[in-house]
Amino acid sequence: MPENVKTADELQTRLVANHFNEWMGLKIVGLDEDKIEITMTWREEMISNPKARVTHGGILGALVDVAADFMIAAKAGAPAPTVDMRVDYHRAAMPGDLKAVGRIVRLGGTFSTAEAEVFDGDGKMVASGRGLYFTGALKKQVKFLARF
Amino acid sequence: MPENVKTADELQTRLVANHFNEWMGLKIVGLDEDKIEITMTWREEMISNPKARVTHGGILGALVDVAADFMIAAKAGAPAPTVDMRVDYHRAAMPGDLKAVGRIVRLGGTFSTAEAEVFDGDGKMVASGRGLYFTGALKKQVKFLARF
Amino acid sequence: MPENVKTADELQTRLVANHFNEWMGLKIVGLDEDKIEITMTWREEMISNPKARVTHGGILGALVDVAADFMIAAKAGAPAPTVDMRVDYHRAAMPGDLKAVGRIVRLGGTFSTAEAEVFDGDGKMVASGRGLYFTGALKKQVKFLARF
Amino acid sequence: MPENVKTADELQTRLVANHFNEWMGLKIVGLDEDKIEITMTWREEMISNPKARVTHGGILGALVDVAADFMIAAKAGAPAPTVDMRVDYHRAAMPGDLKAVGRIVRLGGTFSTAEAEVFDGDGKMVASGRGLYFTGALKKQVKFLARF
Repeated sequence: MPENVKTADELQTRLVANHFNEWMGLKIVGLDEDKIEITMTWREEMISNPKARVTHGGILGALVDVAADFMIAAKAGAPAPTVDMRVDYHRAAMPGDLKAVGRIVRLGGTFSTAEAEVFDGDGKMVASGRGLYFTGALKKQVKFLARF
Repeated sequence: MPENVKTADELQTRLVANHFNEWMGLKIVGLDEDKIEITMTWREEMISNPKARVTHGGILGALVDVAADFMIAAKAGAPAPTVDMRVDYHRAAMPGDLKAVGRIVRLGGTFSTAEAEVFDGDGKMVASGRGLYFTGALKKQVKFLARF
Repeated sequence: MPENVKTADELQTRLVANHFNEWMGLKIVGLDEDKIEITMTWREEMISNPKARVTHGGILGALVDVAADFMIAAKAGAPAPTVDMRVDYHRAAMPGDLKAVGRIVRLGGTFSTAEAEVFDGDGKMVASGRGLYFTGALKKQVKFLARF
Repeated sequence: MPENVKTADELQTRLVANHFNEWMGLKIVGLDEDKIEITMTWREEMISNPKARVTHGGILGALVDVAADFMIAAKAGAPAPTVDMRVDYHRAAMPGDLKAVGRIVRLGGTFSTAEAEVFDGDGKMVASGRGLYFTGALKKQVKFLARF
């Protein structure tokens, strides 16, 4: 696996240039060669079932996608288009901030696979999943990808 | 496949009691025995890449999930908890309202599979996918599910 | 969607040149512009749980993959490499021949999505799923793919 | 996570009672509290593309499923029915024995998620994926699952 080419600060700027990510209050709170950690600020509009007040699965899916893709961005310089993804819902996410941890499964010159886990404030995993990213779209700006 | 037990109006009330669905401006515009059609009102906060101004994949994923689950709700009386889902992204979704069409793949007493396609204003499919729903959670209120 | 460029006979030759497909006794029994139908000859070695004598999920997954990919082959001239896939298991598949029906969800110049359903001898759906195929790998031999 | 309730030897007996697993020459070569390692003996009938002589994706998918499910079996006493699965294909698997490593993502009383990676003889990862398993089916024989 190549070394990171972006810092947490550089990625943070890109992260919240994305309006929906900004709406979710996303913030990179950790980055090393193996993983990225992103927190989300809960808001009332994220509620799904109004009685149970659980957080909408679409929000959890977006978190999995963003955390996985921004670990790719750390290695490849920019997030890559998501081709497809799978999300597993493990527990209801009650109102409160969440944290997503993204890791790369395989970095490739055409396609890459990355995964993420989403945790609630008690550290319980509420969702996890993996996505396929079209890193081929980044080849022009990221020369080293051709080696994979 | 059993007949629908809920009307579009009944489902609409439930749909937007969900805060995030309301935020997305979801509206049921069609319902028959085979499919449900739900429109989404685009908003600036849904933008992902700010240059390309494409709609965030998390929004498309939420649409697939909601349309699939509300076709289950039409048959089973209530939406069922999402256990996992897969979303395929086919084209960039440019700014503009979207429509999701949900169908049931298999209705079961413990778990059910449903799918949905998401279309842009030109009728082009921008995403599609399928989810697994825990219809076993509905068994107490929906007696007939025990037959599946 | 473009017209088929291969006949069922041409595809059958390619299908069983593949040793594992031959081992499964695969046979194309139907092909039109929208779908391909492939039958599988059951064999004792396909059994999973020896008491229940159900067919192994790996066999059902292989059937979904092959049927989806050979509908792509009908349109694109050759099967494309599978990038990822999802399979849903709906019912236990008891001993007996199976039939898979493949359809294209979206045909693209770089990647394509196709789906398939697998039925038992009573016409009950035992599994279904979808895969992502790297049609970009076929571009040199299949010129028209560049248009998608 | 609870401790293993089965030894590698006990699981091996169950593993190859399954005819298709026996046909694939599966052998448990490692088991600890976190992971199970299973080797597969390559055979000519597993070839997909006859020119490239790569191993069929259906075989790799079956390996992911079996390794994930038998790690569940180590904890829960028996493999659980596969509800759905996702497989990512990372590299062509050339002729030769393979090794799958299975881990649990989340063990639950109704549904459980487990994952696996498949490696070739050079230690390169050729495929990986995750499945959803209906551990609720094991509740009668495995009392402690009710606690999850």
